[in-house]
Amino acid sequence: MEGILTEACSLAGHWGLGKLIVFYDDNHISIDGDTEIAFTEDVSGRFEALGWHTLWVKNGNDGYDEIRKAIQEAKSVTDKPTMIKVTTTIGFGSPNKANSYAVHGAALGTSEVEATRANLGWPYEPFFVPEDVKSHWSRHIPQGAALEADWDAKFAQYEQKYPEDAATLKSIITGELPAGWADALPESPADATRNLSQQCLNALAKVVPGLIGGSADLASSNMTLLKMFGDFQKDTPEERNVRFGVREHGMGAICNGIALHTPGLIPYCATFFVFTDYMRGAMRISALSEAGVIYVMTHDSIGLGEDGPTHQPIEHLVSFRAMPNMLMFRPADGKETAGAYKVAVLNRKRPSILALSRQKLPHLPGTSIEGVAKGGYTISDNSTDNKPDFIIMSTGSEVEIAVKAAEELTKEGKTVRVVSFVCWELFDEQSDEYKESVLPEAVTARISIEAGSTLGWQKYVGSKGKTIGIDKFGASAPAPKIYKEYGITAESVIAAAKSL
Amino acid sequence: MEGILTEACSLAGHWGLGKLIVFYDDNHISIDGDTEIAFTEDVSGRFEALGWHTLWVKNGNDGYDEIRKAIQEAKSVTDKPTMIKVTTTIGFGSPNKANSYAVHGAALGTSEVEATRANLGWPYEPFFVPEDVKSHWSRHIPQGAALEADWDAKFAQYEQKYPEDAATLKSIITGELPAGWADALPESPADATRNLSQQCLNALAKVVPGLIGGSADLASSNMTLLKMFGDFQKDTPEERNVRFGVREHGMGAICNGIALHTPGLIPYCATFFVFTDYMRGAMRISALSEAGVIYVMTHDSIGLGEDGPTHQPIEHLVSFRAMPNMLMFRPADGKETAGAYKVAVLNRKRPSILALSRQKLPHLPGTSIEGVAKGGYTISDNSTDNKPDFIIMSTGSEVEIAVKAAEELTKEGKTVRVVSFVCWELFDEQSDEYKESVLPEAVTARISIEAGSTLGWQKYVGSKGKTIGIDKFGASAPAPKIYKEYGITAESVIAAAKSL
Repeated sequence: MEGILTEACSLAGHWGLGKLIVFYDDNHISIDGDTEIAFTEDVSGRFEALGWHTLWVKNGNDGYDEIRKAIQEAKSVTDKPTMIKVTTTIGFGSPNKANSYAVHGAALGTSEVEATRANLGWPYEPFFVPEDVKSHWSRHIPQGAALEADWDAKFAQYEQKYPEDAATLKSIITGELPAGWADALPESPADATRNLSQQCLNALAKVVPGLIGGSADLASSNMTLLKMFGDFQKDTPEERNVRFGVREHGMGAICNGIALHTPGLIPYCATFFVFTDYMRGAMRISALSEAGVIYVMTHDSIGLGEDGPTHQPIEHLVSFRAMPNMLMFRPADGKETAGAYKVAVLNRKRPSILALSRQKLPHLPGTSIEGVAKGGYTISDNSTDNKPDFIIMSTGSEVEIAVKAAEELTKEGKTVRVVSFVCWELFDEQSDEYKESVLPEAVTARISIEAGSTLGWQKYVGSKGKTIGIDKFGASAPAPKIYKEYGITAESVIAAAKSL
Repeated sequence: MEGILTEACSLAGHWGLGKLIVFYDDNHISIDGDTEIAFTEDVSGRFEALGWHTLWVKNGNDGYDEIRKAIQEAKSVTDKPTMIKVTTTIGFGSPNKANSYAVHGAALGTSEVEATRANLGWPYEPFFVPEDVKSHWSRHIPQGAALEADWDAKFAQYEQKYPEDAATLKSIITGELPAGWADALPESPADATRNLSQQCLNALAKVVPGLIGGSADLASSNMTLLKMFGDFQKDTPEERNVRFGVREHGMGAICNGIALHTPGLIPYCATFFVFTDYMRGAMRISALSEAGVIYVMTHDSIGLGEDGPTHQPIEHLVSFRAMPNMLMFRPADGKETAGAYKVAVLNRKRPSILALSRQKLPHLPGTSIEGVAKGGYTISDNSTDNKPDFIIMSTGSEVEIAVKAAEELTKEGKTVRVVSFVCWELFDEQSDEYKESVLPEAVTARISIEAGSTLGWQKYVGSKGKTIGIDKFGASAPAPKIYKEYGITAESVIAAAKSL
């Protein structure tokens, strides 16, 4: 019933994944009753329309022979995935209703367990493995060892003949990154962070063999194409640009699969940041399953302009800052974009989101790759002690505004620190000493500015500070106009500072 | 490509929505290129499998006659929805590539607009309506007036003959709620708020004729069945229990449609709170489109127990508190559940989420329907001035814990206020005086406790307070055990208070 199924299975059909066999247990059971109350489609017909081979085991209760035969047939079809529908007669619509509950998930009671044991002729206590079972299974140990030795010998030959290719393959299998890979990250000029992101991806693709990914039909907006590669398609599986189509949820799920398949495969995927709403289920699974997917999320604020409120994220930054085990980055310029990629590539058990701007941003003095790794860091400060008059904190495209406001206040004789809070989760992991060095307790005149929900900023700004942000939906207008209209300006920061 | 399409269209087929006609513009255009790069399924076959009638206009460029004929045929099929596939030859795969960009969305340039005007023979300036066009269209005014007068006359007769049914219909059409409807909300005993919610829904269904809804295959867990009604199905459209199947995104979208269709239709829908991740796109559209959908979201914390972290929301409360125009409720007992429903039913332009407990909760002295309408309010306080030693704030199932902690601290001679923060958005809309009366600035020893992300609570707790919550994923265990393990206890509150 879930839509994600069609997203993923449509791509499986498109890619002709002949090794994929899916079993559909046609038992007519759902929690609320027989599936007929909400689900009367022709499931096999749907899969055929998606380009799948389908088979039907009409009486799945009759034992394994029919199912074995279907698996054999499915394996013989190598150019399409196969869906095997297995109809069982223990559903709600059948005479044997009692069983259906057990099948769905209710645990068997003691007497049912006893009856099952008697029926199977299994007299042993729980967790006991009889000797004959153990020896039967143990035959796999020498079999497996022989297969592994054979593979190792073949790989050694391969390594001798093709040392470079073997090193690449090894890097993908083990997940060990090539030495000096991070040096490839570019020192880029002023640009939109989505463009800077593309430079990082293209630089990384040259040195990180397992980097593979794409966009949900927004490659030219998300700037995610790897220029030296073609499209990953049925007949070109060696290429690395994946065309996911407009299927965000399926895209995220597929990237989870890639990340969890082999340590050295580093998947990235992309759409507009607001459309994370369509793939949040998959993103939470990344975090929960420790799958280091890199989410390249462009058009990260009202700064995207004319597309208007349907496309303008407001609550999304805070919503991901609150998600456990997810790194939420919002880089301010090229150095910070490179820094975010460095952390993201290194974090193979923690997914990362990079929220990137559509609009051009300046190169800021004071930003650094090392700073990003600390999550929040001072990028400018004209005070001499650790006690500036004001601390202005910001992320992404608004750091430029914070810097401008600081310059104005400095002209008026104030001491001002600007802090880039590029990744809250990383800052929170720093030592108390480091935190105090960035946000000294004694300085309570703090202002935050970010083109998104203010919720959460109170954590850093404190009771006496001010938060500047957007707590309503966006609007359609060119970026400079809407920034002014919504008060995301240096003037707002200066006014807030003076009110403190 | 989007999965939500299959969710909604599968239900349209299941319900046999014969009035629905969908056009599929088969122009082969997507942003990243010809749809063939990611989308090669048999679209008509898919719709047929979903129970739809399908038609194919093979050359959509040839003018309107073929399309008109298809519409006529579609209208003649009344027991199934119809999908009309219209193939046009202006896509990327066609010789006329230039047009494809225009079709997708790039605005026409000045010279293209000029050429189009010349081609259409339209010499007028922008926004000018020539007299003959105006008079041609104006003929609809008397036609419409006659149709309306006819309808009014028929309705007057109907009203005379069936005054009660007419009143019901009128209430649905106008959205005016029957007098005294809110009195039906029950004074319920101690129970899980999901059960209290079911009592509210059943009480409301008797007096609010447009209340209709259901669950995504979790009716018996979400407690959303209206007991006096049967299932809304193809042959029983007069019933009010909608069986959405496991299709959260489609469910939310359908409820948006119901809410926006007629003012007096009040749709509710339900699933586990964590599964809002699968329908967040639809929920944001509720907020953005001012569709007053009521989201009944049960199993609202680690308190759901054994299902474990995949089912336990952590970041969800804060993620919706940050969403503009969305009311996020977490009621603590029966009175607050009734209060949340009262606000939700009244807010026809603002969707509401009710986060409800699986576990049983006590009836708390001090809670009230009126208090809920203010979003945050004092439910107990043993201080005499407006300056208690501590303020403990909480929501939902943790208010009970806050009350216990307050009782302990009171025994030790402290003055303690307990505030239920059932809906942050409503509290933020109150006057400064009211806010000061609940959270006096002078009292900085504040503690929050909630079984979810602590992010955002700093807003109310302030720099000198303490937040108790859960900033990691949950775990699988019975509710009392996991609450203890995660430190969501009265002891934690007391320790935090003493540390202040």
